[in-house]
Amino acid sequence: MSILFKNVNLTESYGYVGTVNVLVEDKKITYIGKEMPEFTADKVVEGNGNLLLPAFYNAHCHSAMTLFRGFGDDLPLQRWLNEKVFPAEERLNDERVELGTRLAIAEMIRNGVVSFSDMYFFLNASAKAVLESGMKANLSRSIVSFDKGADFTKDSRVREAMDNFKTWHGAGDGRIKIDMSIHAEYTNVEGCCRYLGQLARECGVGMQIHLSETLSEHEECIARYGKTPTRFFLDAGVLDVPTTAAHCVYVDDDDIAIMAEKGVTAAHNPVSNLKLGSGVMKYKKMKEAGVNIALGTDGVASNNRLSVLRELQYAALIHKGVNCDAAATCAADMIRAATRNGAISQGRFDSGEIAVGMRADLILLDMGSINNIPSYNFESTVAYSASESDVLMTLCDGRILYENGTYTSLDEELLRHDAKRVISHYFD
Amino acid sequence: MSILFKNVNLTESYGYVGTVNVLVEDKKITYIGKEMPEFTADKVVEGNGNLLLPAFYNAHCHSAMTLFRGFGDDLPLQRWLNEKVFPAEERLNDERVELGTRLAIAEMIRNGVVSFSDMYFFLNASAKAVLESGMKANLSRSIVSFDKGADFTKDSRVREAMDNFKTWHGAGDGRIKIDMSIHAEYTNVEGCCRYLGQLARECGVGMQIHLSETLSEHEECIARYGKTPTRFFLDAGVLDVPTTAAHCVYVDDDDIAIMAEKGVTAAHNPVSNLKLGSGVMKYKKMKEAGVNIALGTDGVASNNRLSVLRELQYAALIHKGVNCDAAATCAADMIRAATRNGAISQGRFDSGEIAVGMRADLILLDMGSINNIPSYNFESTVAYSASESDVLMTLCDGRILYENGTYTSLDEELLRHDAKRVISHYFD
Repeated sequence: MSILFKNVNLTESYGYVGTVNVLVEDKKITYIGKEMPEFTADKVVEGNGNLLLPAFYNAHCHSAMTLFRGFGDDLPLQRWLNEKVFPAEERLNDERVELGTRLAIAEMIRNGVVSFSDMYFFLNASAKAVLESGMKANLSRSIVSFDKGADFTKDSRVREAMDNFKTWHGAGDGRIKIDMSIHAEYTNVEGCCRYLGQLARECGVGMQIHLSETLSEHEECIARYGKTPTRFFLDAGVLDVPTTAAHCVYVDDDDIAIMAEKGVTAAHNPVSNLKLGSGVMKYKKMKEAGVNIALGTDGVASNNRLSVLRELQYAALIHKGVNCDAAATCAADMIRAATRNGAISQGRFDSGEIAVGMRADLILLDMGSINNIPSYNFESTVAYSASESDVLMTLCDGRILYENGTYTSLDEELLRHDAKRVISHYFD
Repeated sequence: MSILFKNVNLTESYGYVGTVNVLVEDKKITYIGKEMPEFTADKVVEGNGNLLLPAFYNAHCHSAMTLFRGFGDDLPLQRWLNEKVFPAEERLNDERVELGTRLAIAEMIRNGVVSFSDMYFFLNASAKAVLESGMKANLSRSIVSFDKGADFTKDSRVREAMDNFKTWHGAGDGRIKIDMSIHAEYTNVEGCCRYLGQLARECGVGMQIHLSETLSEHEECIARYGKTPTRFFLDAGVLDVPTTAAHCVYVDDDDIAIMAEKGVTAAHNPVSNLKLGSGVMKYKKMKEAGVNIALGTDGVASNNRLSVLRELQYAALIHKGVNCDAAATCAADMIRAATRNGAISQGRFDSGEIAVGMRADLILLDMGSINNIPSYNFESTVAYSASESDVLMTLCDGRILYENGTYTSLDEELLRHDAKRVISHYFD
């Protein structure tokens, strides 16, 4: 399949003045230029000067939690977890996780997201939903461990993670990757973390963790081990594998230096951190230190949306306000965090940019919608005025997954029907 | 004209379980109930369980600045003003202000806003745009004064404000109100503030001011007068008229007590305050003190949107994050700030709530959009997951201004055409 985008704009970073034509062949971008390529494409999209942007990468999610949207808002973290989330998660099963993941995927595709990193359980169900959707995902079975003396090689959760790896890693022509995952320092013993790091190294996969999300989590680790969670993971050998660390709200200067040196991605989840009252990540410091900062939505239960565009806009704004510095962030950096940096965090190095040879993960954004008139600068338009409803088209690996209100890989009516049935009887 | 809304949900605050029917006759709501009213309405809207919400009130705006959307982002306040905004404002005229206001109105109606408070100049042009649009607005001619010895009764700007009052106050069957406006303490001398307060009292209108938006503005006032801007305005008699004070980021405990006692509305502009690096208003303190907190977008140049729904969502989230307290805000309070509190700030006391006898300022929100599934609580859905594109219908004073993508009072194509013409030659 080949698609020619005629007369589209690219953001200022790409250096073109005026519209260009972009050709996609199979999974990749094969031409960008002012001239029309000498090639008869299967499909021609008239761009009308709309913006062709790299599609969004969601660097941190618990996709099946979409079932719990708005389930216990405005509550402190511990009450939210104990009274709302944990009892609801007790009732999860394969069918429900698959449905929750499908709901998440529908929302993400509609919002221009083509790939997400996921920490959860019932991974087979999630993987099935990803496979059929045409999206990409780095899925991981999130591990908790509380017994120091246990034989981790025999732990049922660790075995499940290894089974997941064997079954799904590379499926869908590489769309699905399996990462290892340590839920967090405070929910694991050191030996298990070390063992999971070793497994990730042996399998050649990445690692997904929660890191210093709340002040109490950060301080309790220091009280327990005399070191921060970042140093705890460093000392356990975890950070020797490509790691995506979610939240990082309370990392200190030393932690930031470690993250930069080890190439740890900070999956910044601004909305979730605000909503749960966790705090605001030290974006400026981390950016200056050279940390790869990507953007994540976290699960819907603490957001309550799955829009990387929204995270991009919150991040662009909140760090200016909290630092009292309008120059603390810039639109181009935030777009990069939402696209290229997320692709890097997933080990998808041929994705996240519009360039010949790169994967065709693309969205077409409506520059004619009333909230985008006038537009003096496309990067500014994305960061400060665009809306999810401006996403006209979403392409993943060169395949159109969404176009003008219609999904190509999802049966929306069936999904709504299934959602109604499962959700209305969730606690029966 | 009468409209019957069948099978709509109301937010939890209204106390209904399940859907109701709502009848609008002429400008007002005349029936709410489980039974079908014995009345043949001119138009029947099948609600399908969607949410009928009071429409949004925008408590602070400079609507014509929509022309400057994205014009100089990511710059510190003073550079933004001096290099970008002031040179652009030099080139304003009636035609351009009318166009900018029409663009603003189109965006607001589409986002469910039915009324806005505006501080700007070329007020005749703005009023014309409001009148033809069917929206409501409290328009004000923003005054600056630098000469202590001047005879303010003869000041051309003050005379213009009085002319505006005589020409427009009450126009469109009360849709347009004219307020007095003092730009800010730092741009005015005390005598002029006192005189404008007196004029507002004599005319029986409200007052719109900027108050303690930035730390430097707040501290420079203390250095100049030995008192805060709030006390400065109190002592000048300004706060004896119904006042809407925009921003209030740096008001202190004493200021907050004055605002509560004098019934001053704080027009909270969370996005603008973040974007310009001004800071974060002390929402929790002000709320606890009983200040009427409404929500404003500010002008597009510092936002870059005109969505009160977006402000509501930012406000609901940011105060949780900055206070590290997930219970610092609640969805119902924020919805009230975006609706009823804004109507109160405009002296429109029969608006902003769904109740028999109240004005029919209403929006219908799509609960079936993928970002709103599931919804366990309508208030949570509004505050944390709804999108502007979920606005299916906007009614102002019982008149439909927008329905399923179409404006009833605006020629969208003409507006786009005019915008293109004016904006492309703005600096010629």
